[in-house]
Amino acid sequence: MEEINWRTDLAIDIHESLRDRAMTLPGVNETVEETPVGKVIRLEVSSKDSAMQMRKPPGTYVTIESPSLGLREKAKQNEVATILARELEKYLSSVALEAPILVVGLGNSQVTPDSLGPLVTQKILVTRHLRNFVPPELKGRLRSIMALAPGVLGTTGMETFEIVKALVKENAPQIILAIDALATNSIERLGITIQIADSGINPGSGVGNQRAALNYDSLGIPVIAIGVPLVVDAITLVENAVDYMTNKGYDTGRISQGQVDKPRIVRDILTRYFGSLFVTPRQIDSLVEDLAQVIAGGLNAAFHQGIGPDEISTYLN
Amino acid sequence: MEEINWRTDLAIDIHESLRDRAMTLPGVNETVEETPVGKVIRLEVSSKDSAMQMRKPPGTYVTIESPSLGLREKAKQNEVATILARELEKYLSSVALEAPILVVGLGNSQVTPDSLGPLVTQKILVTRHLRNFVPPELKGRLRSIMALAPGVLGTTGMETFEIVKALVKENAPQIILAIDALATNSIERLGITIQIADSGINPGSGVGNQRAALNYDSLGIPVIAIGVPLVVDAITLVENAVDYMTNKGYDTGRISQGQVDKPRIVRDILTRYFGSLFVTPRQIDSLVEDLAQVIAGGLNAAFHQGIGPDEISTYLN
Amino acid sequence: MEEINWRTDLAIDIHESLRDRAMTLPGVNETVEETPVGKVIRLEVSSKDSAMQMRKPPGTYVTIESPSLGLREKAKQNEVATILARELEKYLSSVALEAPILVVGLGNSQVTPDSLGPLVTQKILVTRHLRNFVPPELKGRLRSIMALAPGVLGTTGMETFEIVKALVKENAPQIILAIDALATNSIERLGITIQIADSGINPGSGVGNQRAALNYDSLGIPVIAIGVPLVVDAITLVENAVDYMTNKGYDTGRISQGQVDKPRIVRDILTRYFGSLFVTPRQIDSLVEDLAQVIAGGLNAAFHQGIGPDEISTYLN
Amino acid sequence: MEEINWRTDLAIDIHESLRDRAMTLPGVNETVEETPVGKVIRLEVSSKDSAMQMRKPPGTYVTIESPSLGLREKAKQNEVATILARELEKYLSSVALEAPILVVGLGNSQVTPDSLGPLVTQKILVTRHLRNFVPPELKGRLRSIMALAPGVLGTTGMETFEIVKALVKENAPQIILAIDALATNSIERLGITIQIADSGINPGSGVGNQRAALNYDSLGIPVIAIGVPLVVDAITLVENAVDYMTNKGYDTGRISQGQVDKPRIVRDILTRYFGSLFVTPRQIDSLVEDLAQVIAGGLNAAFHQGIGPDEISTYLN
Repeated sequence: MEEINWRTDLAIDIHESLRDRAMTLPGVNETVEETPVGKVIRLEVSSKDSAMQMRKPPGTYVTIESPSLGLREKAKQNEVATILARELEKYLSSVALEAPILVVGLGNSQVTPDSLGPLVTQKILVTRHLRNFVPPELKGRLRSIMALAPGVLGTTGMETFEIVKALVKENAPQIILAIDALATNSIERLGITIQIADSGINPGSGVGNQRAALNYDSLGIPVIAIGVPLVVDAITLVENAVDYMTNKGYDTGRISQGQVDKPRIVRDILTRYFGSLFVTPRQIDSLVEDLAQVIAGGLNAAFHQGIGPDEISTYLN
Repeated sequence: MEEINWRTDLAIDIHESLRDRAMTLPGVNETVEETPVGKVIRLEVSSKDSAMQMRKPPGTYVTIESPSLGLREKAKQNEVATILARELEKYLSSVALEAPILVVGLGNSQVTPDSLGPLVTQKILVTRHLRNFVPPELKGRLRSIMALAPGVLGTTGMETFEIVKALVKENAPQIILAIDALATNSIERLGITIQIADSGINPGSGVGNQRAALNYDSLGIPVIAIGVPLVVDAITLVENAVDYMTNKGYDTGRISQGQVDKPRIVRDILTRYFGSLFVTPRQIDSLVEDLAQVIAGGLNAAFHQGIGPDEISTYLN
Repeated sequence: MEEINWRTDLAIDIHESLRDRAMTLPGVNETVEETPVGKVIRLEVSSKDSAMQMRKPPGTYVTIESPSLGLREKAKQNEVATILARELEKYLSSVALEAPILVVGLGNSQVTPDSLGPLVTQKILVTRHLRNFVPPELKGRLRSIMALAPGVLGTTGMETFEIVKALVKENAPQIILAIDALATNSIERLGITIQIADSGINPGSGVGNQRAALNYDSLGIPVIAIGVPLVVDAITLVENAVDYMTNKGYDTGRISQGQVDKPRIVRDILTRYFGSLFVTPRQIDSLVEDLAQVIAGGLNAAFHQGIGPDEISTYLN
Repeated sequence: MEEINWRTDLAIDIHESLRDRAMTLPGVNETVEETPVGKVIRLEVSSKDSAMQMRKPPGTYVTIESPSLGLREKAKQNEVATILARELEKYLSSVALEAPILVVGLGNSQVTPDSLGPLVTQKILVTRHLRNFVPPELKGRLRSIMALAPGVLGTTGMETFEIVKALVKENAPQIILAIDALATNSIERLGITIQIADSGINPGSGVGNQRAALNYDSLGIPVIAIGVPLVVDAITLVENAVDYMTNKGYDTGRISQGQVDKPRIVRDILTRYFGSLFVTPRQIDSLVEDLAQVIAGGLNAAFHQGIGPDEISTYLN
């Protein structure tokens, strides 16, 4: 039996890999909802043991899969934003209307596939500073929203966690929504999948660096992570290809026969060689723009109910 | 005697206006240094009364004026960066080599004439996160630098001061360097002037909002503000033009004869009408790019002595 | 009586100035249509004498004025796009479905207020290259569209006219739609006005340079110009302000009393001084983005009838 | 013996593959020059048969390989620009000083790895329009340069060849320099290699489409192509990885034993699956920026001898 490719940020990728290996995961519940624009898959990971097996924290992982996201289909994309808003409202309903909320756009605005988070924050209708200046017609309909795109360690010299913790202490948000570009090991999910995780997020490749995580334990408030897979690493691509060929009946030698630990070989050999490559969808520039619109639309709708998207865009600068 | 046009962030503009009116300012010392690339004007405002008359905090205001900044003259611009570095070293010399330093890029990256600060932070060689990972050849030559472009109130919902104060508490920088685009009332200084002020800065039009200032009093550490005038407001433009015509001997009526309070009229009448206009140099896009290069070059050189600009660009990502 | 400020590309500005001076213009017919999103003003200039007095070629000048364009009101902006499409269809109806059409985006993509044309071309659904590859479901519903943003003289070394003429000879379009950013002398029209002129366009400040014009005479096919005023020159701003103050009853001296030729004075004195300044709306970056969306939306709808905007965005890359 | 991976635009890649297979190529001459910043490899393909075997037109293919290009080493990059200028001068020396020259920036400015060509044209000092307006101090030192970034078929609806041919007819350039992003099958050349080919270029994946080529035969004037490999296709990546593992002694099954036609299998199976992916260097955004600077620097130096880079940047707008 092959080792799992862990180079993914999607719980659903891991869950599928384990299921393919016929592993039972007690305390993990999956439900699938079909919608006109795609599937909504809800994975509730309540057992600590199963969570550990999945290498994910316990929590709820909602995945929205909609091909419309990669096809520039505006009307369907608006539907996806509505589904996203509906999911987020579940977490916001317990937050008082006047309590501050912090949106954090993770990633590097200067690297296209990593710019999703910063792009989303630009499109959020922030309102915390308005307080007493809210136009009368909006009174009681606006939450108190802050947003920040802190940048990445390499351009700030600070862990994202340090910056967010400082703001949590100073400005006392009651919940954080963190947006980030993710990695996946399944090419068919690239760019068309939104994951909503109530267990928080590790910005960057926080492997083995528990201090860097943004979550309830580290910050004392709920952290809802919203991410879209936009990169596959080159090593994953190679593994996928070999698997694919094997599945199609081509003899790929000992490598695919489980006589050797394929992933380790691939990883060991190729890391130095391919480590500096990005694999992204071809239309990454326009794709990121569309996704930022969908996610910001979903957040704005969840935050400011009773205000239509057109009215919201009026108040954006 | 006409009222002064206060719509400027440059101490030198105010100082000239007062001098033109033959007002004596005791406790204000001006020295001018001529260099091959332009003038360096040092204004030391030590008297509180004079400072109040200038509506500026006491402190030292160094102005570098170099036409090369607007003319795309790379070699001369590099000289300006060297002068900037020299001036900054005066403030850095008292900061221990290992003490963290925070660079703050003020302004809105999505509005060209306001994007100078964020652009500069992108070009800063940050190092604080490297700590124990510094390559041996750089040991003892790198300061510990952090950088952040927090965005503006309208896109974050937070005062810049709130964000910076939170970081000061959490990460304990010993000095702050804040970069911002400024306004001026003298069109001939637009885009070709760098002001270095050790009295800090009020981000945005912080008129009457003392809480918003970034300075020693509010943050407990020195704040060196580095700014370039990139906008003139439309009202200033009109005033300048009327003055100019008057000076040229054209009768501009009671307005220019001091029989009415011209600035108030102009301001009252025109604010609503022209309030939403920007006056910028025509080549603002390439100008901001060049200025960001000069300022980041000056900062990098001042921070990391003994490392040439080429070596620094190697470490930038 | 004051001289007219000719520093505008809008026929409606000139027409108003002349009307304010009680000048009769025989052979100029104006009709105004009120719509829920703004006014549509149709100026038919059929008399050569009146055209000469207006310093415009004879032709039809349709002006759509909608404050929604400057207010980020998406739904209303879509209405404006629909009105634009309706107006364009009048010119397209005589063009055979399979005849090639050329969209030209004038201006410099690297200078924000001048980037409208190039931005529009990016959003046009071009189809000429598809010919035999049109998906069956689109057969008979797509026109044959080409688009080019040739750049400006200073970055290409070629007159736009030279490039367009070369393409007309080679690729035989039957009609040209040329998009450009315009100047206006009326600040209140900045950014919220679309002019559609069937008499063509002079790219850049083609003053006195008849060879540079794109029109039926120079190219042998109809040229429909679609423009939005996005800059006011600094001299116009000053003139406007002096007029405004005069109208409000303030004595602005001989300058406003017609005893001197004000525009000439202002122009002579100020040209050198202010020549390098731009006056634009503050939110020029987001404004240009919205306007490009509206104009491209109008063009796509006019070209490809029966295909909804969502379907069109699907085919855009 | 394995089939060759033809998914490369570099002659040197093909030449190496053939040499590795011990194939003799009469009429192909290779010389290697070592410089302080990297290798310059000159491949002269004079035999038609060998050219056909290489699937390249006969001609000279100069390859500059310098790791500095990927390392942000400004000083060394300037050296590369000087080498590039030296190579280009060989082709320019036979062009009269006053004869017009056309620079064509191929590719899509909206897709980062494809934006090299358009970025270069922005940085070229164009001069053709100056003609009689050349400042006296530049007389006799400036060539007559035009530049155009025509866009790609999918955004213009026109073949690049159509646009260029039209301009050649109309404006009579005596030589064309065409800049483009290329593909390679050797990951180690990505982003650090400049190929100069005097046999012209096929924009886009012009496979089998001879009409689309820009070269002496199609345009009647010399076409010098300057390109940098910035993408590897996903299929190449997989092939490279399998080869690499095979070389390292891992059994990769019949696939690597030449018992099956590996490239065909990989291609057939994977095209649909991976066809929409890009593999690029991680730092593609800053890499493209640096490369555009190097290439434009080389072109400007080759065009306008006796004018230093600083003076050139002064005249750029």
